[in-house]
Amino acid sequence: MSDCVFCKILAGDIPSHKLYEDEHTYVFLDAFPGTKGHTLIIPKKHYEDLFDIPNDQMTYLVQVSQKVAKALREVLNFDGINFFQNTGTAAGQTVFHIHFHLFPRWSGDNALGGWSATTPDKDYFEGLKKQLIKML
Amino acid sequence: MSDCVFCKILAGDIPSHKLYEDEHTYVFLDAFPGTKGHTLIIPKKHYEDLFDIPNDQMTYLVQVSQKVAKALREVLNFDGINFFQNTGTAAGQTVFHIHFHLFPRWSGDNALGGWSATTPDKDYFEGLKKQLIKML
Repeated sequence: MSDCVFCKILAGDIPSHKLYEDEHTYVFLDAFPGTKGHTLIIPKKHYEDLFDIPNDQMTYLVQVSQKVAKALREVLNFDGINFFQNTGTAAGQTVFHIHFHLFPRWSGDNALGGWSATTPDKDYFEGLKKQLIKML
Repeated sequence: MSDCVFCKILAGDIPSHKLYEDEHTYVFLDAFPGTKGHTLIIPKKHYEDLFDIPNDQMTYLVQVSQKVAKALREVLNFDGINFFQNTGTAAGQTVFHIHFHLFPRWSGDNALGGWSATTPDKDYFEGLKKQLIKML
């Protein structure tokens, strides 16, 4: 898409720090990393998010991501890694060309926020189960 | 594994709010959700994390996750969703049986923290590329 930053990177119109590419996938260092080695994995074809990308393209992205994660571990000797995909502005997505993040972590770095756990009542669980189970 | 909470759930020794299961996969509502509909997707076989799970098992988990995400969207009408896997204590992993999170989001909920972007110099990118490209 003409107004997509990642499509421009793929077209060579915007520079990037490429680590790997193949027929379907492009892997590059995040230009504004949250931690050392923060890396993005994207499909060459433009899909917006988790709901837009076909299942087979999604799984291929994940296969490549696993390979990249292992290389990052070898080089960086990190203590952990977050592997994530944000879909929608409300979830923090800023570029609407699906991308998986590999986000290396070191103990105590506080580099990525977590969430507050809640303890809902029985109605919460029963209500959701009633609606969701029949769809799966 | 005998001391694994998720293995105990799979064995029926600990109750859970199951949404779906098949030969390889089990899907249930997080007992302590960060947002409404927070759901976990796990393999039935015990693998610790992103590095331990075989590629084909990993991709199957993701395929199921995509299906579950669509059901959650239908029921919850959320504004976005975070899809993530934390590997290692340093990355926030607390149960060492690999699990993907589906974490629904609503605009302005501030339910999940982000990261601070940095702007490293050229040496950062060139140094990492030099080490990583040859491994991929």
